Amino acid sequence: MARIVVLGAGMMGTACASHLTRCGHDVNLWGTELDGEIIDLLKRERKHLTLQATVPSEIKFFRAEELKEAMKDRELVVIAVISHAVGKIVEKIVPFLEKGMIIINVAKGIPEAPYLTLCDLIENLIPSWLKKRVWVVGMGGPARAGELVSEVYTEVIFAAKNREIARHCVHLFSNSKLRAKATSDLVGVELCAAMKNAYAIAVGMCEGVAEKLEMTMDNTKAAFMAQAITEMSKFIVPCGGNLETVMGTAGVGDLYVTVQGGRNGRLGRLLGLGMRVSQALEQMKDQTVEGYTTCQGMLRLAKELERKCVLQIKRDLPLFVELYEVLYCQKKVERVIKEYWG
Amino acid sequence: MARIVVLGAGMMGTACASHLTRCGHDVNLWGTELDGEIIDLLKRERKHLTLQATVPSEIKFFRAEELKEAMKDRELVVIAVISHAVGKIVEKIVPFLEKGMIIINVAKGIPEAPYLTLCDLIENLIPSWLKKRVWVVGMGGPARAGELVSEVYTEVIFAAKNREIARHCVHLFSNSKLRAKATSDLVGVELCAAMKNAYAIAVGMCEGVAEKLEMTMDNTKAAFMAQAITEMSKFIVPCGGNLETVMGTAGVGDLYVTVQGGRNGRLGRLLGLGMRVSQALEQMKDQTVEGYTTCQGMLRLAKELERKCVLQIKRDLPLFVELYEVLYCQKKVERVIKEYWG
Repeated sequence: MARIVVLGAGMMGTACASHLTRCGHDVNLWGTELDGEIIDLLKRERKHLTLQATVPSEIKFFRAEELKEAMKDRELVVIAVISHAVGKIVEKIVPFLEKGMIIINVAKGIPEAPYLTLCDLIENLIPSWLKKRVWVVGMGGPARAGELVSEVYTEVIFAAKNREIARHCVHLFSNSKLRAKATSDLVGVELCAAMKNAYAIAVGMCEGVAEKLEMTMDNTKAAFMAQAITEMSKFIVPCGGNLETVMGTAGVGDLYVTVQGGRNGRLGRLLGLGMRVSQALEQMKDQTVEGYTTCQGMLRLAKELERKCVLQIKRDLPLFVELYEVLYCQKKVERVIKEYWG
Repeated sequence: MARIVVLGAGMMGTACASHLTRCGHDVNLWGTELDGEIIDLLKRERKHLTLQATVPSEIKFFRAEELKEAMKDRELVVIAVISHAVGKIVEKIVPFLEKGMIIINVAKGIPEAPYLTLCDLIENLIPSWLKKRVWVVGMGGPARAGELVSEVYTEVIFAAKNREIARHCVHLFSNSKLRAKATSDLVGVELCAAMKNAYAIAVGMCEGVAEKLEMTMDNTKAAFMAQAITEMSKFIVPCGGNLETVMGTAGVGDLYVTVQGGRNGRLGRLLGLGMRVSQALEQMKDQTVEGYTTCQGMLRLAKELERKCVLQIKRDLPLFVELYEVLYCQKKVERVIKEYWG
């Protein structure tokens, strides 16, 4: 039994807390300032506002102001907040970190310069006297929260520079319904997790166009899926990640599940139906659409890689270029598809 | 304008003939002995029995006994018959082959020993005096026939040992709705095309179980998708194929489209719903389920690769092993999923 705290009571944080409790661990679930209502309902009825699930009674819930209590005596910290809040949260927990602790990042995004991955950002915030005594691990793979909490068979992958630490996380998370893998390819797993959200918007766009035209466009979606995986590898390999990661559970698996029904795919669908970006984001304002902001980080990274001459944006990332123009330059989805094929 | 004959008036053959006609080529469509009714309806009303589409009026239709007429004066032959009939069809057209002709294989399967791919089999049947004067090309990628015939944006890939020949096919097939790529990785494209049918059965099984249990199992399907791509690479790379092919349109793209609604996915779904293999095949007896027989070819290939010590079946192909046991050893789908996660 491990003593764990999950930071962030959104859908994924709550699903992780439920799963880890079922694995027999002692789990605290802490909500951010934005999670007040969620934590209150969880405390009262063990129900989650948006997850539509009852969680195990053993979980202890903590409001934002109870961080110290939530962190007390923990050996594993799971960070499951929106990606742009990761830095702020890590700064808050620094006083409670102790040597030997493991921090697992579940957030999916690309941090601001100069960091490549959220795990890099987290490591950089760990005080120097604790460096190499606190381990940072990335989690990836196709784990939709609603299914994880319902004990649907799920596979995830843990990545840490020290593979033994990743293996330890595998051990903590595995049960008959969750199969976990370990890898030392932290860059690959973290970048796959972030980028698949962006590319899922592109695949979702085809879904929206198909719906508008009252037809199927599976051939088109499939072409975009394949191009997405190919372009992810163009980003990831020059950054030091492995092709095997992109082809596996963190890349192909996670892109597929996100396309099948995630929020990023839904944003794409609205755009494909003809909505403007501002309208679509407004309609989804209660939901986190990480892929939208991730495109900014991807553009920065693509430009860096182009400067280093390991990538040519127009030649190697044509789908990303089109996606970016839809999201940030008001280009129409149907024109994008037409020109991509032209 | 090229003079083309498409052999096989099934859904894919007819879709290719329609597409090539729209590209401005002169197209003959020849039906096998099994396609008599289809050809008659096409001649009468330009409608296809199962494709539910009207085809361009410029196509000329030929019955099985009119092969000589259909082959007259052609420079490109597209073979679009069921995979186990490819050898027989090629033997029949040998008398009509002339130097400079290109044969494109659209069939998807693994031939009997000693051949690795259907293109190998075709090449071997070409008389020695024509060898290196008739070019064999494989076609792959996510092109569902119903969408191709309806001019949905589609991407395909042509593979030939001589890349210039593949590029020539790209040129012949490309228009504003079809985007084509060229590669010299014939082994990769041909094996992806065949194997994705088998793995789509495995992903479809999850769909059936989910339906029976009245839940979604997208996490499970995604884990299988990723494992399928990983295992395809374990087969293909030691055979001389490229990882890039598996990650691209021929691998990821074609697996996705097949899972989304192909016949192989449907067989898996019936098995997941609890049907026995014999029942499910009986229910689908009017439809070609190539993935079922492809598993036999894959087992043979896996054993060969294991003998050469470049692969360990149990370690490297766990999903294939389970799939094979469902299809040929009456293992229950739910037990397979449980044990795969166990």
